[in-house]
Order: sequence, then structure tokens, then C-alpha cells
Amino acid sequence: MTGRAWRSRTQSLDEQRQIKEDVLLEIAARWFNKHGFHGTSLSDIANDLGITKAALYHYVKDKSELLYRLHLKSLDIAEAAHERAMTEGINGRERVRLIVCYSVAAITTSLTMTLIVLEDGALGPKQSSEILARRRRLERELRDELRAGIDDGSIAPCDPKLVSMTIIGILHWVTIWYKARGPWTGHQMAEALGSLVDRMLVPGGKIPLSGDVSSILAADYTLR
Amino acid sequence: MTGRAWRSRTQSLDEQRQIKEDVLLEIAARWFNKHGFHGTSLSDIANDLGITKAALYHYVKDKSELLYRLHLKSLDIAEAAHERAMTEGINGRERVRLIVCYSVAAITTSLTMTLIVLEDGALGPKQSSEILARRRRLERELRDELRAGIDDGSIAPCDPKLVSMTIIGILHWVTIWYKARGPWTGHQMAEALGSLVDRMLVPGGKIPLSGDVSSILAADYTLR
Repeated sequence: MTGRAWRSRTQSLDEQRQIKEDVLLEIAARWFNKHGFHGTSLSDIANDLGITKAALYHYVKDKSELLYRLHLKSLDIAEAAHERAMTEGINGRERVRLIVCYSVAAITTSLTMTLIVLEDGALGPKQSSEILARRRRLERELRDELRAGIDDGSIAPCDPKLVSMTIIGILHWVTIWYKARGPWTGHQMAEALGSLVDRMLVPGGKIPLSGDVSSILAADYTLR
Repeated sequence: MTGRAWRSRTQSLDEQRQIKEDVLLEIAARWFNKHGFHGTSLSDIANDLGITKAALYHYVKDKSELLYRLHLKSLDIAEAAHERAMTEGINGRERVRLIVCYSVAAITTSLTMTLIVLEDGALGPKQSSEILARRRRLERELRDELRAGIDDGSIAPCDPKLVSMTIIGILHWVTIWYKARGPWTGHQMAEALGSLVDRMLVPGGKIPLSGDVSSILAADYTLR
């Protein structure tokens, strides 16, 4: 399939190049996920695409640029998911639920969404800080929506920092275990995970949350 | 601090060796997490410990053995957390909550718990399949407890496969973002995440879950 897409004939040269780049990014994402950035070479990727390494250099300067472009693409998608959710949701909880739904749908339909953890030293300092800044903005948006939901009464009092990290953890794990050929569609996953997160956040019920994790008087869970 | 622990004098040679091995595993875990398995060399680890590479070979045959022992150690701890939770919990939901609490407490107090994702090709086939088998058993246990909770009425009808993967995702993410020097203790994290999962599972409430994700009639969450 990959080979076919790479060689497909479309109307314009621009479109052809776009399709080739998409396939290239998808293959690169798969390799980086499976073998790590340092465990993958441009030759591996060229071989998998069935092209020469020289031909690959037509599309990408080096391995680091490939990783950088993957990060940019996955950030573009995540930002689009946030934007859509923030336009459509009528209150904080609904916006958070929609962030989950749109993100999960995007993750499960795009293989290039799989790179969330930044390996140290894989990117230059300027690229790293650009990506970290955009990622921090996404996390801040999620936390702001949680706070907005607490304020508008749609979300139970909770610690927005802990809950945002928990939601990001759920989204990140989907990129690791979800198999597009499994029994569940991406939209079913989106709906199901949206409901699970909604349950965590809905006000009322028997299990209160703490608004500030650092004030919790915790039991001792040491394994002895 | 590391260097001091490496050189500390304790009563017996066995204890000294044990402490050195613990420090070695902790340093190795940090390197593998930050730079990936393929991005880390034994020289990096020896340098960080302030010993020669030759001295390191006294403790470990090669880099792959180090990764293998890290996996074994993290599985030992995860299995101990499950066992304790399964003995103490009075129903399915309480056992699942305790699995979360004990696991989070263990993760946040042991840096060697940080390796959950298996990079392909980093271990030999026999070692990989041993680790995958133990991991699959842990996931099966979690799913069985979810099913037990649905049967005993303590857990809302839900899809045990989806919920178990969601819980594993939450636990895995803790290994990535939790900082021991941050404002929250491991036990506070354990309590807080235990409550969040408890809220997902408690019966009743306004948000029903599906018992089978593949039967969900999902909305269309495509980003256009």
C-alpha cells in the first residue's frame, strides 16, 4: 500500500509531492515509534519506502528535520482539535470532553500523531523549545478549560493540573496501543474515552476530588 | 548524591553490592528514558556513575542485560502492587482503586519503574517474550478485576478492555511527568489518581458507559 501511494499519479505535481511527504512522515513515525529516534536511520526509512537514500534527500535534509516536521504536524492537529472543541462546547466540561473526542479521533486516524514524548538531544535547541512552547500552550488551554468548568459549575471541584496531566496521559497512551485494524473505530474510541473523562469531571456523586493535590492527607501506600 | 550512594559503606559486601546495583539501575533508567535505549551507551552510564567502563562490566554483561533487569524490577514492583491490592480490596472497584494507588506510590518512589514501553529490538526474543507475558498477565488481572466489579455491582457496566488500557495509560504517563521534587508526594498522587479512577467506575450517575466499545454509535469527530 505504501509503495503504491508513493508512486500514485494525481492531477498536479504539488499534490504528488504532498502525498509523498505524507507517506514519508507516516513511515518515519512508525520507525521512530518502534525503534526510537537514535535506533532509526534514514536508510531504514528509504528502504521501507523502496527508494534510494539520495531520493529521500530530495524531501528532507536529515533525520532531525523529519522528526521536527512530525512534531509540527502532530501539533497542528492537536491545535485544530482544541480550536474546534473550544468553539463548539457550551461549558467547560463539554469543551474538555470535545478536546478528548476530537484529539482521539485525530490520533486514531493519523499515524503521524504518535510522537508525543520528546527524546532529549534528537532536535536542536531552537526546534525543541518551539515544540515545547506549543505543547505547553495546549496543556495550559486544557487547564484553563478545566478551571472554567469548575467556575461555571459544569465540572466538580478538582485540581486542574492533575486532571490535565491525567487526560494527556490517556491521549498519549492511545497513540501507543490503538490498532487501526482492531475491533474499534477511531470515532467509537473518541466517544468512549470522552465519556470516561466526562465521568471523572461531572459534579456531584459519592467520590469528591481534591481541589489541590498538595493538601491531600494521603494514606500510606508503601509496598513493604 | 548518586556518587555517595555508590561508595557508601554498609555492613556486608552483599548489601554493598545490592546498593550499587540499585544505583546502577536508577542511573540506567534515567538515561534510557531521556535518550532512548539506542541513544545511550554503557560509557554514558559509567561516566555518570563516576566509574570506568571496565568496573561497570563487573555488574552487567551488556546494555541489553541492563534494560532486561530494569524491566524485571519494574514488573516485580507492579506485581507486588497488584497482589497487595487484590488481598485488601473488598470488591472489584476497591481492588482496582488500590491497584492504582499502590502502583502510583511505587512509580513515584522508584525511578526504575519508568520503563514501560518496550522499544523493538532492544532485547533478545526470549527476554522480550518473557516480559510481554508478565505484562499481559498484569493487564489481564486488571481486566478481570473490572469484570468482577461489574458482576458484584461495585463498578458501572463498562468495557473492561477500554478501561484497563485507560488506567494503564494514566499510570504510564505518571512515570513520564511526575517529578519527585515537585509539590506533590507520591502518596498524594496515589490518593488523587485513585479517586479519579474511582469516579470513572462508580455505578449510577448521569453518564452511562458502554459495555462494548465496538457497539457504540459514535458521532463523527473528523476535523475538517
